[in-house]
Amino acid sequence: MAQVKTKTQSIKHLIGLKGMSAQEITSILDRAAFWEQYPAKVTHFLQGKFIANMFFENSTRTRFSFELAEKRLGAQVLNFSAAVSSVQKGESIYDTVKTLEAMGIDAGVIRMKPNGVLPDLASKMSIPLINAGDGHNEHPTQALLDVYTMRKHFGEVRGLHVVIIGDIMHSRVARSNLWALQAMGAKVSFCAPDNMHAHDLDGLADYITMEEALQADVVMMLRVQLERHEEGQITPSSLEYRAQFGLTVERASRMKAHAIIMHPAPINRNVEIDDELVECQRSKIFTQIGHGVPIRMSVIERALS
Amino acid sequence: MAQVKTKTQSIKHLIGLKGMSAQEITSILDRAAFWEQYPAKVTHFLQGKFIANMFFENSTRTRFSFELAEKRLGAQVLNFSAAVSSVQKGESIYDTVKTLEAMGIDAGVIRMKPNGVLPDLASKMSIPLINAGDGHNEHPTQALLDVYTMRKHFGEVRGLHVVIIGDIMHSRVARSNLWALQAMGAKVSFCAPDNMHAHDLDGLADYITMEEALQADVVMMLRVQLERHEEGQITPSSLEYRAQFGLTVERASRMKAHAIIMHPAPINRNVEIDDELVECQRSKIFTQIGHGVPIRMSVIERALS
Amino acid sequence: MAQVKTKTQSIKHLIGLKGMSAQEITSILDRAAFWEQYPAKVTHFLQGKFIANMFFENSTRTRFSFELAEKRLGAQVLNFSAAVSSVQKGESIYDTVKTLEAMGIDAGVIRMKPNGVLPDLASKMSIPLINAGDGHNEHPTQALLDVYTMRKHFGEVRGLHVVIIGDIMHSRVARSNLWALQAMGAKVSFCAPDNMHAHDLDGLADYITMEEALQADVVMMLRVQLERHEEGQITPSSLEYRAQFGLTVERASRMKAHAIIMHPAPINRNVEIDDELVECQRSKIFTQIGHGVPIRMSVIERALS
Repeated sequence: MAQVKTKTQSIKHLIGLKGMSAQEITSILDRAAFWEQYPAKVTHFLQGKFIANMFFENSTRTRFSFELAEKRLGAQVLNFSAAVSSVQKGESIYDTVKTLEAMGIDAGVIRMKPNGVLPDLASKMSIPLINAGDGHNEHPTQALLDVYTMRKHFGEVRGLHVVIIGDIMHSRVARSNLWALQAMGAKVSFCAPDNMHAHDLDGLADYITMEEALQADVVMMLRVQLERHEEGQITPSSLEYRAQFGLTVERASRMKAHAIIMHPAPINRNVEIDDELVECQRSKIFTQIGHGVPIRMSVIERALS
Repeated sequence: MAQVKTKTQSIKHLIGLKGMSAQEITSILDRAAFWEQYPAKVTHFLQGKFIANMFFENSTRTRFSFELAEKRLGAQVLNFSAAVSSVQKGESIYDTVKTLEAMGIDAGVIRMKPNGVLPDLASKMSIPLINAGDGHNEHPTQALLDVYTMRKHFGEVRGLHVVIIGDIMHSRVARSNLWALQAMGAKVSFCAPDNMHAHDLDGLADYITMEEALQADVVMMLRVQLERHEEGQITPSSLEYRAQFGLTVERASRMKAHAIIMHPAPINRNVEIDDELVECQRSKIFTQIGHGVPIRMSVIERALS
Repeated sequence: MAQVKTKTQSIKHLIGLKGMSAQEITSILDRAAFWEQYPAKVTHFLQGKFIANMFFENSTRTRFSFELAEKRLGAQVLNFSAAVSSVQKGESIYDTVKTLEAMGIDAGVIRMKPNGVLPDLASKMSIPLINAGDGHNEHPTQALLDVYTMRKHFGEVRGLHVVIIGDIMHSRVARSNLWALQAMGAKVSFCAPDNMHAHDLDGLADYITMEEALQADVVMMLRVQLERHEEGQITPSSLEYRAQFGLTVERASRMKAHAIIMHPAPINRNVEIDDELVECQRSKIFTQIGHGVPIRMSVIERALS
């Protein structure tokens, strides 16, 4: 669901993109376009507002992007990083968020490991929460910046064929992109090793081969979560993965002339994507990162307006 | 001692509440009441001042509360967290604080593990230090917000009977509350397992039973420091602790009609207090947290005025 | 090299002091003198600019000094600390810096473990990078504040004899001071155990004995990196080190009447320098720390002007 509406009907949480309309997505993208063009680096739109970045799972890059967005809007920012090990239960996360709410913050950006507890958590808060990634459920601001990047490049998202390649099962990026892209009228396909298929998404998108994937308009590579695996436990290995599902220079050379490469970063160079491709002509990887700031400005402003 | 007066007579440290007069406490509470009502979230009272939060012992919540207070006052904030293991000696803490002083900060908020080294440290500094918790010695801002919460709820602190339940021996919250509450004319009792009595406080407050404790006006539960104990080393165990000293739903039902429940947080739900009680009608737990910000604004302003 | 000039000729990186002219150094020191006297603690010189402190190696003190400098200039500050273990390869550092650049930061302060990768990294960026210490290569702002301290104390640096005592081989402080001091016309000598000589600097400065070192105008002690060694692996041991190369009270008593003691901090009291000397009349240690802020203001302003 896009927004959890509870006792306080008007709270503009951003929990996920599942169920969010094309109109709502478009209004977020349009406002991001406004911010991308905005001449002043720091504004006073959210002067006097306090935003807490609550990262129960480490992510320096995403936190950094949110912090930039918040400060560009003139808000006061507080950062909170919990060691993953100490706060893993939804219960403890509840107490922490409730504590920050009691201290008087105006909105919270939250990242956490557990799946599916965020809607319930948000329903108990009187301040808006913005999902910065929850387990393998959703990462809405990532998908919004991805869609923004496609719209900016192609002019329109409707009719595009986007293939998402990698560990679909554990990817919140894949899920949020699926919801947003389908709402916007794009066709989404997946490409993944058998043991990385997402069975909760069966029937929503086709699995295609790498050869077929190279015919898409957008080839979106997912990060192989090397850090989630002990040595030897990864199946397939990095080398095998690259051979079977990596975007190699050779494969990229067979993409359509107008097609683009995307990746949510951080990148494992020469695993899911070859080093030479990261900053090649087709690649939108650092462009995506740049778009993250205006997208998050748009989302934060929406939460606090 | 409330203030260490040394070569620089006028430095307004806040080392502890031991020896602080009712008049001084009242003036801090009154100013906090002013800040609690203040309409603007961010002010310019401390514009151009730099405050360093120096946490030689981790505490995200307390640091967060101080940071909010500092930013609401318009100060510039710098956060410093030292791994507990690397800086444990008073000597190293001295060098670090002296370093930040040399860099030009205007005041320091400090939390540390060692007991009793803070007065000597403060006497060597030319900037005010505010104690955010030192070992099991004092946690003055916590007790001030507790007294503030009681005064706001009951109108007056004089004549109240406050019972503090838990590991008194290791609790800086208990000690700071003892000093502040007695100065303000309240009666303080303790309730604790035999191995958690504080012998340095012998004769200052009576130990009473849980049955007697339920007759108090304020039932203040302390956190069981589960994290300080290796598995199996806690005596009594969590289950036994709850049975003997936990505030259960059944016990809370026998409290006086007007009595309130307090806890400095974070909470071990279903250990020292039952889950259902945390946000019940009687509970002031999240109210206390909210009062922490104006209390700290008052204390910081006092240090820098 | 002082500045890497690449495709974007005008980017004012500060990679190191090797090759920087006396004129350039003097202009940085002069501007620092301006900032040291500047009456307002917070200014608006860099209002609307975002600076990222990217510490791929932990250093709370140096980060703190940069953060103070940045905030005094009115800039927005974002802090990034990577666990040393997770980001050690130049490649990963490249991706991180490129990511922050893509997000729109205006300048980056960077500390890292690898030697010699910074010039190449800087050549690929469109924003200025300031070296806050790279391996044992350079630590330019430290040497600039050291030279500033000498100039302020003696009036002129030309003709001074500065001896640097300690682990020259692993010291970026020694290297940056060597380049800056020689450019400014001072004579530099080293004093070190045989196994701590820097062979890359052979012929550039003489190694002298401790007895000879006591005749210098400036006795600069280096920190013994106790934390870099496992117990028992340090040669010589701390006790032996103090006996042979420590600045003891007895040795300090034989220094020239006008000579000063310097140390980049943090200090191992009673290892490389006796406790009683740290804040003695001759010692400039905390004065150096204080000078770090205006030096860094000068350097940051230079990068962004």
